[in-house]
Amino acid sequence: MRGKTITEIEINEKASFQKTLTETDVYLFAGITGDNNPAHINQVEAEKSFFKGRIAHGMLSASLISTVFGVVLPGPGTIYLSQELKFLRPVRFGDTITAEVEVLEKDEAKNRIKCRTSCINQNGELIIDGKAEVMPPK
Amino acid sequence: MRGKTITEIEINEKASFQKTLTETDVYLFAGITGDNNPAHINQVEAEKSFFKGRIAHGMLSASLISTVFGVVLPGPGTIYLSQELKFLRPVRFGDTITAEVEVLEKDEAKNRIKCRTSCINQNGELIIDGKAEVMPPK
Amino acid sequence: MRGKTITEIEINEKASFQKTLTETDVYLFAGITGDNNPAHINQVEAEKSFFKGRIAHGMLSASLISTVFGVVLPGPGTIYLSQELKFLRPVRFGDTITAEVEVLEKDEAKNRIKCRTSCINQNGELIIDGKAEVMPPK
Amino acid sequence: MRGKTITEIEINEKASFQKTLTETDVYLFAGITGDNNPAHINQVEAEKSFFKGRIAHGMLSASLISTVFGVVLPGPGTIYLSQELKFLRPVRFGDTITAEVEVLEKDEAKNRIKCRTSCINQNGELIIDGKAEVMPPK
Repeated sequence: MRGKTITEIEINEKASFQKTLTETDVYLFAGITGDNNPAHINQVEAEKSFFKGRIAHGMLSASLISTVFGVVLPGPGTIYLSQELKFLRPVRFGDTITAEVEVLEKDEAKNRIKCRTSCINQNGELIIDGKAEVMPPK
Repeated sequence: MRGKTITEIEINEKASFQKTLTETDVYLFAGITGDNNPAHINQVEAEKSFFKGRIAHGMLSASLISTVFGVVLPGPGTIYLSQELKFLRPVRFGDTITAEVEVLEKDEAKNRIKCRTSCINQNGELIIDGKAEVMPPK
Repeated sequence: MRGKTITEIEINEKASFQKTLTETDVYLFAGITGDNNPAHINQVEAEKSFFKGRIAHGMLSASLISTVFGVVLPGPGTIYLSQELKFLRPVRFGDTITAEVEVLEKDEAKNRIKCRTSCINQNGELIIDGKAEVMPPK
Repeated sequence: MRGKTITEIEINEKASFQKTLTETDVYLFAGITGDNNPAHINQVEAEKSFFKGRIAHGMLSASLISTVFGVVLPGPGTIYLSQELKFLRPVRFGDTITAEVEVLEKDEAKNRIKCRTSCINQNGELIIDGKAEVMPPK
């Protein structure tokens, strides 16, 4: 019930979480966030749009990064400090997204780590790229 | 069915979306993201933690910013390019969060706007601060 | 798996379905319908409103009438033709609503019944009143 | 955070909300209303029925009308007084439904408006027709 402390974490250590994002995920996400942008919940309008069909919310894929931090590395007890995200490609219903965290720097005095955070689809395409800072549990 | 174009958007223009985030929202968010960090879904563990009780996922509040972009300003047709987030305070079940977007810069040649993005609770405390870049619809 | 036919249904026959409507029900209903009216999902705004707090969507309680038709009387195979609704009082989170159907008229030639349809809360107050017409299964 | 007042609303003014209704929506709606009519959640029985497959609850499409009133026109602060509904055609999973409200009459003394309310599918077919009465915010 407690994740890794900063001394247990190594530079370049990686961890990931992978999920096939479905229509159900997108519809529930629209429901709880109120983000009823037609791009996500309106097939007729979405077909006319730049992406030619409904796509998942960028923040849904991005939230899988939080899953890695909170469940895998460092795991329970982690405090999320900051997150930078670049949304590079759309996610279609049924795409399988791998959220990956790689430890870049450790600041043991302040108990903070900096990580590269990315989301990749089933074709190996980079969907989201970015960096994050978290405090591992003590 | 189409949001504001860049010429219709003004510097310093603001828009917001407000919701009381509940246990239901947090549990559904945990379900679709897989972020079953005890901080969010385990009252016993959460009481022993730094925050002394269950809190909402930071990315849940942050996702309300996407709601403003996709539904209000610029609205439908917006493409999300990037988002920076600093998580400053926890959100408790039942807190009412206002996600606010303020337009800081417009680049009409590239059709991009830069915005300050923030989440504030019912007591006026800043929960999340950051910046985002989006492309308004053409 | 088949409800009552028109010859099996009697004038003045009654049936009901009862449920305690919770915050979860209201939040899910807001999610699937997109009805994010602050009256339902924003405690701060709702407290300032006429009803002094969040209330359930009127159509959520009204939908319990459809439950009676589709599950109890006439039951599976029923085709819903029309529904008239008067929203008389608000429903608070935690109220226990009884949706009741009473058969008023039968038209065996057209296979249609007319019913009074009402929703009553745990204090016996009439929340919704109305009439409906349905075709029982053959 | 406040919708249009009666003086700001014009006769013949229209507003709409559009959503592709999915299996997810229908199953969640069945869950919260208890309307587990096989027509909605039982593919085997539904294939043998008049509609030859599962269909959405009529009250789910009808609830999108409430979304227009509560979010768009008049918007937040609206009080729903009455709704008449005629269910004219079934809605299949994946149909894109437009709920539309058109203002027919204003009674400024009583602060009430009467509206035509309709739901139309992606083929332009009228699914639900009816009328409603609401009180705009003051």
